[in-house]
Amino acid sequence: MELLKKTIEGIGELNAEAMRSCRERIDKLIKPIGSLGRMEDLAVQLAGITGELSPVLDKKLIVVMSADHGVYEEGVAPNPQAVTAIHTPNFAKGVTGVNAFAKQAGSEVIVVDIGVAAEVDYPGVIQRKVKYGTDNMTKGPAMSREEAIKALEVGIEVTSEAIAKKGVKLIGTGEMGIGNTTASTAIIAVAGSFAAADIVGVGAGLALDRLGHKAAVINKAIELNKPDVNDGIDILAKVGGLEIAGMAGTMLAAAAHGIPVVVDGYISTAAAIIACKIQPKIKPFLIASHMTAENGGRRALELLGLQPMFDMGLRLGEGTGAALAFNFIEAATYMVREMITFEEAGIAL
Amino acid sequence: MELLKKTIEGIGELNAEAMRSCRERIDKLIKPIGSLGRMEDLAVQLAGITGELSPVLDKKLIVVMSADHGVYEEGVAPNPQAVTAIHTPNFAKGVTGVNAFAKQAGSEVIVVDIGVAAEVDYPGVIQRKVKYGTDNMTKGPAMSREEAIKALEVGIEVTSEAIAKKGVKLIGTGEMGIGNTTASTAIIAVAGSFAAADIVGVGAGLALDRLGHKAAVINKAIELNKPDVNDGIDILAKVGGLEIAGMAGTMLAAAAHGIPVVVDGYISTAAAIIACKIQPKIKPFLIASHMTAENGGRRALELLGLQPMFDMGLRLGEGTGAALAFNFIEAATYMVREMITFEEAGIAL
Repeated sequence: MELLKKTIEGIGELNAEAMRSCRERIDKLIKPIGSLGRMEDLAVQLAGITGELSPVLDKKLIVVMSADHGVYEEGVAPNPQAVTAIHTPNFAKGVTGVNAFAKQAGSEVIVVDIGVAAEVDYPGVIQRKVKYGTDNMTKGPAMSREEAIKALEVGIEVTSEAIAKKGVKLIGTGEMGIGNTTASTAIIAVAGSFAAADIVGVGAGLALDRLGHKAAVINKAIELNKPDVNDGIDILAKVGGLEIAGMAGTMLAAAAHGIPVVVDGYISTAAAIIACKIQPKIKPFLIASHMTAENGGRRALELLGLQPMFDMGLRLGEGTGAALAFNFIEAATYMVREMITFEEAGIAL
Repeated sequence: MELLKKTIEGIGELNAEAMRSCRERIDKLIKPIGSLGRMEDLAVQLAGITGELSPVLDKKLIVVMSADHGVYEEGVAPNPQAVTAIHTPNFAKGVTGVNAFAKQAGSEVIVVDIGVAAEVDYPGVIQRKVKYGTDNMTKGPAMSREEAIKALEVGIEVTSEAIAKKGVKLIGTGEMGIGNTTASTAIIAVAGSFAAADIVGVGAGLALDRLGHKAAVINKAIELNKPDVNDGIDILAKVGGLEIAGMAGTMLAAAAHGIPVVVDGYISTAAAIIACKIQPKIKPFLIASHMTAENGGRRALELLGLQPMFDMGLRLGEGTGAALAFNFIEAATYMVREMITFEEAGIAL
């Protein structure tokens, strides 16, 4: 609890002076004012987060949190639960979707077993298991409040360590966990007072005729556990997930270190909602990457007030959208650094 | 005319076998089928264009065509015409918006004076001036049919030379030319039978109360010159521009060489419309990058049947959107190359 508390308290405001200087320079660059649209806003946000006019974001990292869900036994996912344990080493092997996109973007990927239901013994997988998957949230809370805090702190620790050791300058959140669109939908439904039936989606490919069942499972968990909408840790513990907690921890740690953090897809958005409930000041440190193809994604992002950069119909998770977005974010810093002003070009208009 | 004819005839069909193999592999990768959405479609298209399962697109190039417009004198642009000549060397100096984004994407930029109204004498600017700007299209055709063909062939030559000398594997189109949204809007209006008033936009920042005048100028040029909607070269000569011709030439050359070509924003889309009129088989070789903030952009892309990858509110042109899109395109090839299949992972689902 101490680490979480300290991290929450360590999150400040964006640097207004750096933002002002950045906007001022952008408005003088050799282009019509405003003509690089949201790339300009992105550059200003990055200046505010880092306190630098044009931060060099060369050390990039996707943190993949991997965990299982007790609610799996209610038949809400199309794949065997064992896939979580089987797939987790693949992130360390470098052969997954997020590894591919991260490699293109010049980013490292690390993977954390924060709650896989089986042993994951593979070199490179960071062993920080809080418990062997959550409990079935239709029969009680997914985890205790203490476990939720512990998982948040694992996210903080792993991320802070990577920042310290690797000099990371840009972070993206990723995940793996069979059943985690169910937990995410529960979080989003609670936070936005949405009917589960309105936002539930197929996740990794659930049969459409099972969607009603999935919504019913989510409703049952919410009704039984009655999460407190104003208490992010309570929502997380009762209807969340260990990887979602870890991702929220990553976001909090990044913000506390003044490092921009990129929200991937549906699960990441649910984690961002938890992080914002825990510490609303984190919001301007978050950058949405893409519009997921998962049904509830749009409303979840709207709830956060975040605007995605692109919509390529992705619904894999893992951090794939965040890795693709790294390029836009880096390009925004190049704009400030590489372009010259009208004055520097000797042009008087 | 010989070079244009030969190039047009050299554009074939996408390689169906490579596309089939690519789709087959993508469907076996360790992810739910279809979960990487349009990145999957992009990878299949790239396989079809190049004939390779997963082409290595490490040599990237943005070709910036620079030219002036006689219609400038009708008061359709907010900046002095001299800006074209002044700004053109900046692409060779590496200090423009497209240079910044290209550097991030690992792409080279070349700039061609294909029709600037003044001398542009700067090392690195490729001197291929067809004429000193187009003529005023409200008083006659913007250029002769012969000049249009010559400008198309300059685009083909410069691009073919870069492909041969630099081993370019991925090409994006860019431009600079005060007044070129006026010519582009005229092309789009003719091709789509749109009213100029419905699609006209502010370009580099025309005052809103001048939009009606800009539309009237476009209408006057179309009514006077009566371009043949079925003849791309006729549209180009009568209401187009030299840089637009050059860009269409770049597209034709890229397709003839089996190299994917990325359409940037509004002016590039107008050039793509011309290229498709000249040779409809070029269409599957084109990749749209972004949705421009310029008013008529959406209808122009719909006319082509191309779907942009992102909308970041860009309206600078130069190839900025194409350079950003290079990252997505490269990432799609990494997906095919770096991810493994379920079988390779030893997973039987």
